[in-house]
Amino acid sequence: MTAIDELRSRVAEISDLGRARALLAWDERTQMPARGGPARAEQLATLSRVRHERLSADELGRLCESLRLEVGSLPRDSFEASLVRVTEREWRKARRVPAELRAEFARTTSVAEHAWIEAKENSDFAAFLPHLERVVDLRRRYVECFAPYEHPYDPLLDDFEPGMKTGDLVPVLTRLREGLTPLLAAIQESPVDLDASCLHGRFDPALQLDLSRRALEAMPLEAAAWRLDETVHPFATGIAISDLRITTRFDPGYVGASLWAVIHEGGHALYQNGLGSELERTPLCRSVSLGFDESQSRMWENWIGRGRPFVRFIHPIVREVFPEAFADTDAEALYRAANRVEPSLIRMEADEVTYNLHIALRFELELEIFEGRLELADLPDAWGDRMQSYLGIAVPDDAHGVLQDVHWAGGSFGYFPTYSLGNVIAGQLWDLARDELPDLDEQLERGETEPLGELMRERVYRHGGKLEPDEMTERVFGGPLQTEPVLRQLWEKYGELYEIAPREGGH
Amino acid sequence: MTAIDELRSRVAEISDLGRARALLAWDERTQMPARGGPARAEQLATLSRVRHERLSADELGRLCESLRLEVGSLPRDSFEASLVRVTEREWRKARRVPAELRAEFARTTSVAEHAWIEAKENSDFAAFLPHLERVVDLRRRYVECFAPYEHPYDPLLDDFEPGMKTGDLVPVLTRLREGLTPLLAAIQESPVDLDASCLHGRFDPALQLDLSRRALEAMPLEAAAWRLDETVHPFATGIAISDLRITTRFDPGYVGASLWAVIHEGGHALYQNGLGSELERTPLCRSVSLGFDESQSRMWENWIGRGRPFVRFIHPIVREVFPEAFADTDAEALYRAANRVEPSLIRMEADEVTYNLHIALRFELELEIFEGRLELADLPDAWGDRMQSYLGIAVPDDAHGVLQDVHWAGGSFGYFPTYSLGNVIAGQLWDLARDELPDLDEQLERGETEPLGELMRERVYRHGGKLEPDEMTERVFGGPLQTEPVLRQLWEKYGELYEIAPREGGH
Repeated sequence: MTAIDELRSRVAEISDLGRARALLAWDERTQMPARGGPARAEQLATLSRVRHERLSADELGRLCESLRLEVGSLPRDSFEASLVRVTEREWRKARRVPAELRAEFARTTSVAEHAWIEAKENSDFAAFLPHLERVVDLRRRYVECFAPYEHPYDPLLDDFEPGMKTGDLVPVLTRLREGLTPLLAAIQESPVDLDASCLHGRFDPALQLDLSRRALEAMPLEAAAWRLDETVHPFATGIAISDLRITTRFDPGYVGASLWAVIHEGGHALYQNGLGSELERTPLCRSVSLGFDESQSRMWENWIGRGRPFVRFIHPIVREVFPEAFADTDAEALYRAANRVEPSLIRMEADEVTYNLHIALRFELELEIFEGRLELADLPDAWGDRMQSYLGIAVPDDAHGVLQDVHWAGGSFGYFPTYSLGNVIAGQLWDLARDELPDLDEQLERGETEPLGELMRERVYRHGGKLEPDEMTERVFGGPLQTEPVLRQLWEKYGELYEIAPREGGH
Repeated sequence: MTAIDELRSRVAEISDLGRARALLAWDERTQMPARGGPARAEQLATLSRVRHERLSADELGRLCESLRLEVGSLPRDSFEASLVRVTEREWRKARRVPAELRAEFARTTSVAEHAWIEAKENSDFAAFLPHLERVVDLRRRYVECFAPYEHPYDPLLDDFEPGMKTGDLVPVLTRLREGLTPLLAAIQESPVDLDASCLHGRFDPALQLDLSRRALEAMPLEAAAWRLDETVHPFATGIAISDLRITTRFDPGYVGASLWAVIHEGGHALYQNGLGSELERTPLCRSVSLGFDESQSRMWENWIGRGRPFVRFIHPIVREVFPEAFADTDAEALYRAANRVEPSLIRMEADEVTYNLHIALRFELELEIFEGRLELADLPDAWGDRMQSYLGIAVPDDAHGVLQDVHWAGGSFGYFPTYSLGNVIAGQLWDLARDELPDLDEQLERGETEPLGELMRERVYRHGGKLEPDEMTERVFGGPLQTEPVLRQLWEKYGELYEIAPREGGH
């Protein structure tokens, strides 16, 4: 066996163990009998441990080192050069963190997540604070494993955006926030109020499931390569390029909760489905980063799913499934209902405009925590202040404020900004799609999503995780991330909907 | 960590990897999108390989050896003594077979199973013969790994009935056959013909699913610890003691295909569900043997499910689900329909009496193959001769004869006899249940299955795989396997149904 073959065989095993773990996790959330929980936790822990053992093995590091010279002359984005480089990167990260710290983090976040559930139910941040302190302390110790670093937030961010630096991220998210707060103000000053009442009423979950399946069938997913199930917290996961599991939940009183959420998860699944088949069973068989991944869920949910052409396409289907509820709703009314903007307390329920302000708030607080400028005990106040200043609303209690998301209990600092990065990237990809597909609107109105799917596969999906986010941005857009497209698109869309006069001097 | 703790930790990992594999296999057959097949095959192979690596590791053998003395003074059926002994036994078996032979067997049987599907469709044994020859050759090489042995069939049997010898099995199955052929002859001579037409008609699969769930709910399974799904070839599998997956298929034209098949699989699930909780994540967390396992599926399907008391209980439920089809069928008519005996070509469709004759035929042919007394090319003729002599029917073609079962293509020689062993053990357990539960019939007629479940848990299930089959037989029945109970019970049941005069001199 040649060295590259041995590398392939080792990473294939590591990949299979990870995919098996993903299937067990999916099963736990969608199929498992309730009493299976304790045994499942052990099975998941074993698969993680065995996978980590193999990923951090001495032999894997030696193999990468021995191959580095061999692939040195190959193009950076060639399969072999990328395989060696990305494997070595993952191996190094796996080696940096001591097994005890890893184990303590797993235990502590597991306890903290349970404490969070209870604290949220009682809206009692004080009860959660000691857990959060332990989690943050462990994250600080994790950060130190990667010293020296430019910024203490860098190692956290790196888990989700490989190679990205905090210093490059801050200006992007600041520009996004600064461009959106005046848009929100203008929307709130507008005399227009969009009517979303058609989305509220009584919607049989079985029929919502039917509608969700039909929405997914309109997306350019490979046939017989995906399935849709119900769960509590929706997600999409890839067991293989051609084995995708999309999940959703149904609110019997609000059809909007599932329809666009399913298209969102379908966007994640599309990305996985478009990865180059030669990448299967390697560490390259993934999206560039969480930001790039989120760009697809957001683009399909909002740019397409809540865009006028696709709404015109889906409107007769919605009416067919719910003839009575939508008897008096035409396509334009559905479009307006789908795009109502209203500042709210909860990120998960936020519209396209306010969503990024929820993220800005979280990202800025995370930075202050890890820069040592904010005491954890002061988080509820800091949260309340920023909600007031960005969204203009008062936070009534912790449950509707600082306790609403599970991320911090799970130790996922560095995760939130990827949601907004996704919107920024989606904006740039949308400009690109408009340039390349002059008939895009007409296609979407006919439900023809394949040309757009093919373009995304060609430019983004098929390359998988060969390149780092900044390299991909450079390759796809010819330069660094730009907030101008997403801001322009949102100002245009909501300017029309809310009859706002165009701003002078752009965004 | 003490040596016993280290052993526990190692076997727990091996167990988790095996359970994860079981979940992936269940998912493949019940949930997986069709296009997921090739990646799933790789994932399953990886989990098998990683598990086998750990099971055959030098350290595991050394650990068992070092513990052997320590547990030597403990009772043989104590947890620790059993754990060391059974782990060492599995370790030895894993070490005996070279990796190449293992890999070649996996490849060859995979190809042979596909060839079998095609050969069966074309009813062409000649096309399958070269594959069968390769499989049998590899099984002979497998047998040689375990030399010296008393009989070349012993190592094959040992995979399903740990420690059982061919020399002990032959007289049991011969007595069974010799007791059943005259019963079948008497049934065929009887002027009585039972009417099973109520089971044939049109039965909506969704309603059959409902009926199946209700049948399972009547069994003493732990609530929220099982689920039922559809598949092509029904099976039951345990992901944990409290996470059981039962599967079935629905024939829209015949409700008998699913109702008793579900109770059969429910019997397997019951056994898993009753294993002692301290056995979880050890190699003891399994049934004594396939024969013992099958005793439970058979007992619940036939002794209980097709017995008069339980049929009286389930009859109103069947009528509630299918009011029209069973409008004119009373409980006694349903009981008679469920127990119609008719020699047929296909084992899977055979009734309680002829089933064991199908098994006798296969077992005797397997013995002749491995004793070198039968050429594989002569199998169809040998099959036809025995079908004529045991069941009195002519085999029209290979598809309805030697090609009907997948077992040989998969290399599972030694498996068939466990089906009949299951019936023998079930007969003995039924005598025991009658002794211990004087109100058994009344309980079953009220759908009270918990006392019987508790008795089986106490005597059989909870001990798991601590003891070998002959030790368990000795412990539960006070002596070796007896065919007298099953033969007496079948003669009594079918004697009454078919109005046959009692035989002189017993069975």
